[in-house]
Amino acid sequence: MDERDSLSLVLFSGTDDKLAAAAILVVGAAAMDRRVDIMLQYWALDAFRKEGVHKPRGASAEAGAEGAEVLQRSVEELGSPHWSQLLRQAKEIGEVRIHACSQSMDIFKLGQADLDPMVDDVQGVAAFWAGANGQVLFI
Amino acid sequence: MDERDSLSLVLFSGTDDKLAAAAILVVGAAAMDRRVDIMLQYWALDAFRKEGVHKPRGASAEAGAEGAEVLQRSVEELGSPHWSQLLRQAKEIGEVRIHACSQSMDIFKLGQADLDPMVDDVQGVAAFWAGANGQVLFI
Amino acid sequence: MDERDSLSLVLFSGTDDKLAAAAILVVGAAAMDRRVDIMLQYWALDAFRKEGVHKPRGASAEAGAEGAEVLQRSVEELGSPHWSQLLRQAKEIGEVRIHACSQSMDIFKLGQADLDPMVDDVQGVAAFWAGANGQVLFI
Repeated sequence: MDERDSLSLVLFSGTDDKLAAAAILVVGAAAMDRRVDIMLQYWALDAFRKEGVHKPRGASAEAGAEGAEVLQRSVEELGSPHWSQLLRQAKEIGEVRIHACSQSMDIFKLGQADLDPMVDDVQGVAAFWAGANGQVLFI
Repeated sequence: MDERDSLSLVLFSGTDDKLAAAAILVVGAAAMDRRVDIMLQYWALDAFRKEGVHKPRGASAEAGAEGAEVLQRSVEELGSPHWSQLLRQAKEIGEVRIHACSQSMDIFKLGQADLDPMVDDVQGVAAFWAGANGQVLFI
Repeated sequence: MDERDSLSLVLFSGTDDKLAAAAILVVGAAAMDRRVDIMLQYWALDAFRKEGVHKPRGASAEAGAEGAEVLQRSVEELGSPHWSQLLRQAKEIGEVRIHACSQSMDIFKLGQADLDPMVDDVQGVAAFWAGANGQVLFI
């Protein structure tokens, strides 16, 4: 695997629509043998609390009531997997690591024991940049 | 044209301010001879419905009433082109392709015939990553 | 310094949580000797008005009342520096330039004299792309 091919993702938002969009991009990248590093900040970190990943977190404000209903209906009708399930799948098929941002951990007063086991470790921003050798996304 | 110079854009948001910001970045990149690939997801896809691109979609939640008014006034006073017009212009001057994300098409129960003719095709995430050889943005 | 190592940031959002997330990423990059170019658009530009950077701008819509309270409490308890202070620090330790997007300046009817002195100049999108030789983020 080439370092040029890695993907680094700063995950800031914690709404179900953005987390799903992120998870779909990550699964696709992992399926193409790309290393993926995800750093969880703010509301995305909050979404990875232990026993909290399945808690409904709503959609982006712009979705409105109508959009939220479209998403809900699509889950029921299409049986689309939950974003957490997609990320677990990505971790199984590829080299996908999920890091909690140490600064956001302080803000939310969290320790790693408070997080879902999908989260591999706690990382500072310097370590994130040190590992970000390819494309970077902020979601 | 060098593949390194391509720009890949995941367009997720469908508010008029973010679509305008995206369109301005795309026009600038196209004017510099860069290939641009745009993948439409979620609310951005919804904004490209046939005969729907000119429907007002409001601004980001953070704009508030005051910000929305500033945008509206600027359109009237500056005669700023609509984001859809900027994207059409970008497609005329450069190699700009707009892809609808197949997974979002399922969520919104859309077929390509339901979309504005600016949209070139429907694409999966794997195809998006395969074509993303340069910088990537998520908007 | 290698051009490959530069970081270009389109800063669109003007809420305190996203500006803090951006500032943390910029400080980290600057500390690693990376050149950073920030282009301010829309609500982020609005946040850099002279004598306005310390005005509270709230959090992303998704934060809700509970999330906003967590942020407020963390500022008081952790004494976390304000995002503007982090950016000033980044400019001191590294090669960090802040550009106001000329098109957004028109929308908000601003001249450079209306902006905080942290802003180095006004720039068009073409100049932004011309300088963006490395990773690009949209926040």
